[in-house]
Amino acid sequence: MADQDAVTRRLPESTRVEGFSDGVFAIALTLLVLNLRAPDTSVAHALLTDWPVYVAYLAAFLNIAAIWIHHHDLFTRVRRVDARLICANLLLLLIASLFPWPASVISAAVRSGDRSNEVAAAVLYAAVGFLVPLAWIVLYSYLGRHPRLLRDETGSAFIRTAIRRALVSVVVYPAAAVLAFVEPVAALVAFAALPLFFIGTLVFPADSAASP
Amino acid sequence: MADQDAVTRRLPESTRVEGFSDGVFAIALTLLVLNLRAPDTSVAHALLTDWPVYVAYLAAFLNIAAIWIHHHDLFTRVRRVDARLICANLLLLLIASLFPWPASVISAAVRSGDRSNEVAAAVLYAAVGFLVPLAWIVLYSYLGRHPRLLRDETGSAFIRTAIRRALVSVVVYPAAAVLAFVEPVAALVAFAALPLFFIGTLVFPADSAASP
Amino acid sequence: MADQDAVTRRLPESTRVEGFSDGVFAIALTLLVLNLRAPDTSVAHALLTDWPVYVAYLAAFLNIAAIWIHHHDLFTRVRRVDARLICANLLLLLIASLFPWPASVISAAVRSGDRSNEVAAAVLYAAVGFLVPLAWIVLYSYLGRHPRLLRDETGSAFIRTAIRRALVSVVVYPAAAVLAFVEPVAALVAFAALPLFFIGTLVFPADSAASP
Amino acid sequence: MADQDAVTRRLPESTRVEGFSDGVFAIALTLLVLNLRAPDTSVAHALLTDWPVYVAYLAAFLNIAAIWIHHHDLFTRVRRVDARLICANLLLLLIASLFPWPASVISAAVRSGDRSNEVAAAVLYAAVGFLVPLAWIVLYSYLGRHPRLLRDETGSAFIRTAIRRALVSVVVYPAAAVLAFVEPVAALVAFAALPLFFIGTLVFPADSAASP
Repeated sequence: MADQDAVTRRLPESTRVEGFSDGVFAIALTLLVLNLRAPDTSVAHALLTDWPVYVAYLAAFLNIAAIWIHHHDLFTRVRRVDARLICANLLLLLIASLFPWPASVISAAVRSGDRSNEVAAAVLYAAVGFLVPLAWIVLYSYLGRHPRLLRDETGSAFIRTAIRRALVSVVVYPAAAVLAFVEPVAALVAFAALPLFFIGTLVFPADSAASP
Repeated sequence: MADQDAVTRRLPESTRVEGFSDGVFAIALTLLVLNLRAPDTSVAHALLTDWPVYVAYLAAFLNIAAIWIHHHDLFTRVRRVDARLICANLLLLLIASLFPWPASVISAAVRSGDRSNEVAAAVLYAAVGFLVPLAWIVLYSYLGRHPRLLRDETGSAFIRTAIRRALVSVVVYPAAAVLAFVEPVAALVAFAALPLFFIGTLVFPADSAASP
Repeated sequence: MADQDAVTRRLPESTRVEGFSDGVFAIALTLLVLNLRAPDTSVAHALLTDWPVYVAYLAAFLNIAAIWIHHHDLFTRVRRVDARLICANLLLLLIASLFPWPASVISAAVRSGDRSNEVAAAVLYAAVGFLVPLAWIVLYSYLGRHPRLLRDETGSAFIRTAIRRALVSVVVYPAAAVLAFVEPVAALVAFAALPLFFIGTLVFPADSAASP
Repeated sequence: MADQDAVTRRLPESTRVEGFSDGVFAIALTLLVLNLRAPDTSVAHALLTDWPVYVAYLAAFLNIAAIWIHHHDLFTRVRRVDARLICANLLLLLIASLFPWPASVISAAVRSGDRSNEVAAAVLYAAVGFLVPLAWIVLYSYLGRHPRLLRDETGSAFIRTAIRRALVSVVVYPAAAVLAFVEPVAALVAFAALPLFFIGTLVFPADSAASP
């Protein structure tokens, strides 16, 4: 190869962690589309009656998108990575990459039309969703205890806010699981609304100090 | 790790947005091949009779490729990203990552040989295709209203041209949906021709000012 | 976001083309594993009798790996990209991303044990394989006619060698298709051997001038 | 395109090798979720009885994550790549991208409830797992014999340690295959524990010389 012995100027550590994470997020998010497969029955009829499948698709897409956008936001503040931060990050990737699973279980349940399967599928989604804030808290707390990994002093206030934000999910997902027993589709709507709220916290920040 | 405490020189913001977007485009485009799965009947016979499946594959591939090539072109002109631009970009990714869905519905409909399913599948493709220019217009308009995110003054003329180009799709997709009721395969050919036209606008630009 | 208004220092043009291409190659290559799915019969028995499936897997993996390694080698010599080069590259990606299709048709044919399906599947693989050198020749010829896109003068000799190398495939794939009518498994072995040869041309270059 | 003729400042060789490898690792790891698909029976019942499927999922996820984290660690020490190193790396990618296969065979076997299929599936996992240290040893040995590809002198001690670590897998996987005949689920637990150990060697390094 032309440059095979050229001395490489490697990318910094965190870039590869970010690139690998982006790959996992992008794939998990795109795999969701496999749950929107062709129906066995009439296409026109299925398109009209399968709408809870689309709500579940949107919920899972927004969930992974919200994780990605906050991961992106967090890593703008990280200046060093170490092996334990990489492990905490892998934990977050493990949880994020699970979302196509409850989404596929919801799709199958909606199409089977079995109410008890729909409830179980929505509870499964809530259980996976509940793991997300726990993984974030592990990641944020580690950074909070190791401020030298952060870019500057504003980091510690950022970490405290982020942990408080994660606690919202810790409360909402169990509540949505209870709601699923009453009405599974209402739980799906809650699953879609929660990541919209988290994306909104970045688009409309409470303190405008973030803007220069 | 050797460099675990090396201060990282992070990539700029937009690079990670571009990398994540490229991941979604690359995956959506490659997942399309799953619709070309092995037939249940004789392979030789299926290869000859399934040709509308290949037209749909090509249409969806070209559609995502056209989105990627214009995304690439747009981001050469973007110099800053903010949270709202990231959200508009996520909307575009949401739509682009949907294409394997209508492509799989078309594959199933063609193989089932049910005419009403073929019409419904082609209308679904047109509906997804119709969302693409809407997402582009959201993205372009935001940049048009925030020229400081653009690299230089040529940006605003670029944005106006891009919005006019998106309007072509706003007209063509509903027309193709109507055409699908007459002849679904003709709609598939239109779906493949439209992204070829959009790729062509970059390969043969109307004004050669872009060439140095 | 912390840096939302930081002026971004974008990566160069070709990096995004390379990154997107790498994404497509990596996904196509990894999707192949879906063809190795669990058998319907006894696992132990299937593992022993399905070996042509593994040969087809290896062939398709090596094929995409060989395309990647030569794409990587080519782009070390490219210093500028333009819209037409991007289109020629998209053509190569279209062909490379097709490989999971013949690989899945071969898997299904081997498992069904239908000889005529095995022949048709091997001919399909040869047809997809035949498109690869055509896409390379389009890409290499464009660079050959536009030497200003290349990094230096050694480029034109490189292009001539590369086109000659691609012509090997133009001959071998039709021959393998004929062989498939005699013995489909022999054709699979040829499909695996050919990319090994192409990878070998980089590992053991005929002229050692490439080494410093 | 705006910058179509801008001279590109390409990324170094190893960056593209790392990016492509990350793509393969990220996809293989995320494809595993497809094995967690919706059950054919009652969702609630399946969630409780399918737990060996989740152990197999976790094992395969951790396996690929452990390969990634050590690949990342290794490439921080590599300063040049050549064609043979790329081939040894492709061999590692080939093995890593296989994991969704035994994971899917285990899922199908657990759901079928056939004991002999579970044993065969666990032995298949052990066989794929056994190939991982062999690929690592090829990669490490090549670097050990070509120290000029390494960043500095600490490299050769690193390589010796890495090869010794890989030998652990060479012993553990055959032992786990034997264990599978006694109790397949115990083998799954061993498959999950081994990558945890390998990740642990990075998080808690035996010599703290790695920390500055």
